Amino acid sequence: MYNFTYDIGTKVHFGKGQIEKLPEAVKEYGNKVLLVYGHGSIRKNGLYDTITKGFRENGIEWVELSGVDPNPRHTSVDEGAKLCRENGVDVIVAVGGGSTIDCSKVISCATFYDGPSWDLLIKKAKPEKFLPVMTVLTLAATGSEMDCGAVISNMETNDKLFLAAPEMRPKVSILDPTYTFSVNKYQTASGTADIMSHVLETYFSPEKDFYMLDRFCEGLLKTCIHYGTIALEQPENYEARANLMWASSWGINDMIGYGKRGPWTVHPMEHELSAFFDITHGVGLAILTPAWMEYVLSDNTVDKFAEYGVNVFGIDAGLEKYEIARAAIRKTREVFRSWGIPETLREVGITEDKLEIMAQKAAKSLGGDTVYVPLNAGDVLKIYKACF
Amino acid sequence: MYNFTYDIGTKVHFGKGQIEKLPEAVKEYGNKVLLVYGHGSIRKNGLYDTITKGFRENGIEWVELSGVDPNPRHTSVDEGAKLCRENGVDVIVAVGGGSTIDCSKVISCATFYDGPSWDLLIKKAKPEKFLPVMTVLTLAATGSEMDCGAVISNMETNDKLFLAAPEMRPKVSILDPTYTFSVNKYQTASGTADIMSHVLETYFSPEKDFYMLDRFCEGLLKTCIHYGTIALEQPENYEARANLMWASSWGINDMIGYGKRGPWTVHPMEHELSAFFDITHGVGLAILTPAWMEYVLSDNTVDKFAEYGVNVFGIDAGLEKYEIARAAIRKTREVFRSWGIPETLREVGITEDKLEIMAQKAAKSLGGDTVYVPLNAGDVLKIYKACF
Repeated sequence: MYNFTYDIGTKVHFGKGQIEKLPEAVKEYGNKVLLVYGHGSIRKNGLYDTITKGFRENGIEWVELSGVDPNPRHTSVDEGAKLCRENGVDVIVAVGGGSTIDCSKVISCATFYDGPSWDLLIKKAKPEKFLPVMTVLTLAATGSEMDCGAVISNMETNDKLFLAAPEMRPKVSILDPTYTFSVNKYQTASGTADIMSHVLETYFSPEKDFYMLDRFCEGLLKTCIHYGTIALEQPENYEARANLMWASSWGINDMIGYGKRGPWTVHPMEHELSAFFDITHGVGLAILTPAWMEYVLSDNTVDKFAEYGVNVFGIDAGLEKYEIARAAIRKTREVFRSWGIPETLREVGITEDKLEIMAQKAAKSLGGDTVYVPLNAGDVLKIYKACF
Repeated sequence: MYNFTYDIGTKVHFGKGQIEKLPEAVKEYGNKVLLVYGHGSIRKNGLYDTITKGFRENGIEWVELSGVDPNPRHTSVDEGAKLCRENGVDVIVAVGGGSTIDCSKVISCATFYDGPSWDLLIKKAKPEKFLPVMTVLTLAATGSEMDCGAVISNMETNDKLFLAAPEMRPKVSILDPTYTFSVNKYQTASGTADIMSHVLETYFSPEKDFYMLDRFCEGLLKTCIHYGTIALEQPENYEARANLMWASSWGINDMIGYGKRGPWTVHPMEHELSAFFDITHGVGLAILTPAWMEYVLSDNTVDKFAEYGVNVFGIDAGLEKYEIARAAIRKTREVFRSWGIPETLREVGITEDKLEIMAQKAAKSLGGDTVYVPLNAGDVLKIYKACF
């Protein structure tokens, strides 16, 4: 167990109607907002009106960046940073899911960088100053509402890169589960798979000695499996949406990873898929995860997979450990299948001609020997092929 | 599930050697410290020297309040507040367990109150201004290092009262598990029972719909049971001490209780025992808890007790639910017994003549009809008697 500093400073207003706390939160930092959102669903469901009414009533001015795509682009970041500079923005308010929030986080530092924002992603420049970011979450998935990272895509170079800084952690997040009632089945399933993947990446770690946090991980996984299924059947079940929403934040807000080290495995493999083919991130993860599990199951990992099977799926602890491990992997696959997530890369439009280049790029960001099970480009290629 | 605001602002430096971060943390708030501790064990084990050396090397001056008792007294609070006022203290640093920390938290506001600190406990006056509190934890038990409450005793009136305010939550806590290597078996056992009791008070709640947090609760309980036993056998097992230490913070830092309401049950019953007889808080809790469980088991509660049995103790879910519930209560008792905690009130010196008055006082602070199972003075008396 490594030393760590716990410091999760996001203030979260959780529950129905908590949006009323947003204007007061903004005013702690200023009265000029950049309002960032996607393709206008918030204009249809009334959320835009609620938020801007609150701004108007509290003397808060705003400018807008809309049209942020899933797998948000560096071009949106540049556009947002320009708006912030030109309008003297004090606070960025992201309304949406992970893409909108990630875009806003990078805008927060790109505003103070005199050059293209992509420089920050390729580490040509270091972010040094940040605008405060607040979020109004409308999708339980990435956990970006409470973490300090962001992923930005460059579709010209087929790169999807990660940036993190403590200052990028949102100051305030509004988590109202009713905003996710209208999330469709496909996005609900892939969002929940995304949460599970964050937890699994941490759970399957080379560090074995943070028992308490492994139990928290299992609790999060059980929550996703239990309520993912219920939310698909009953999209307006508050309890289900609330549990998934809070699980999304805790899957990646650093808590379950404190004291551990070791980079992730499945995310870097998936990032290549969405960088080349712009697929839904959570779907890519759900396709890859069981294949990765099968590939890395060995005498070195079987105990952990057996623990996963017993504690998450309630498999009989008296069975032989490989039997438990294989059943656990099978059940993981069955969960995603039962949610209607595609099971092969072919189904989501990935073509075989790109597998090699994607495998090579993924291997470069796989963290060498410090990951749970080290994988080279050949290993990644085999996993990709197993998903065809 | 109720709306809530997550706001746990304590920065925790966790791990061996993290004490080196204390001087810098103090200097964010000033350079005059009130150093609060108990009966001098920190002078013997070198911790006092480490801390004061760090202060000296960083130009931090300090005054001291030592001799804080278990079940900390209002008289110590008065003494500390006087020292703060007379010396222009900027920051209070509590070194010890929950008693020292609780005392420091109330000193932090008593400093700005022009009257006896007990007024704040009996709600005659409201705390309005606070000094920042930092902690160096030497006992995993109360969780005071990360919560915003404090319990202070008045042995003249046999009262043990609670005060809470967001500003009382420590700004910084140093959690170095090696500081608990020297905690003796009795304190290790009763501290772990205290952590378990915090979790159980929240787990057995009238609110049933925060599945994710119930799973966290079960994870904390399993951690206490697993590592409580190991720490008693191997007091210098880092992994055990670290897991218990982090569990102590998460048992009561508000996280597992967000979205729930309902006051606690066993703590108010125990507070009377220690207010009248000055017994060890965790021991009182461990004696009362199984008796309380037996008393409240009914058709209304059996499902929750069965869930507890299956998820915490791994009891076969296929058994009849009362059978699971009774086995879970029996196993709870067996855990405390295996740790050598006394099982009856008689063993810890409680006398029968005080049972009635204690039951009456406990019933007054039991929160009426909003607790898990409402209890009147007659019920409390029966539970006390069942522990004789």
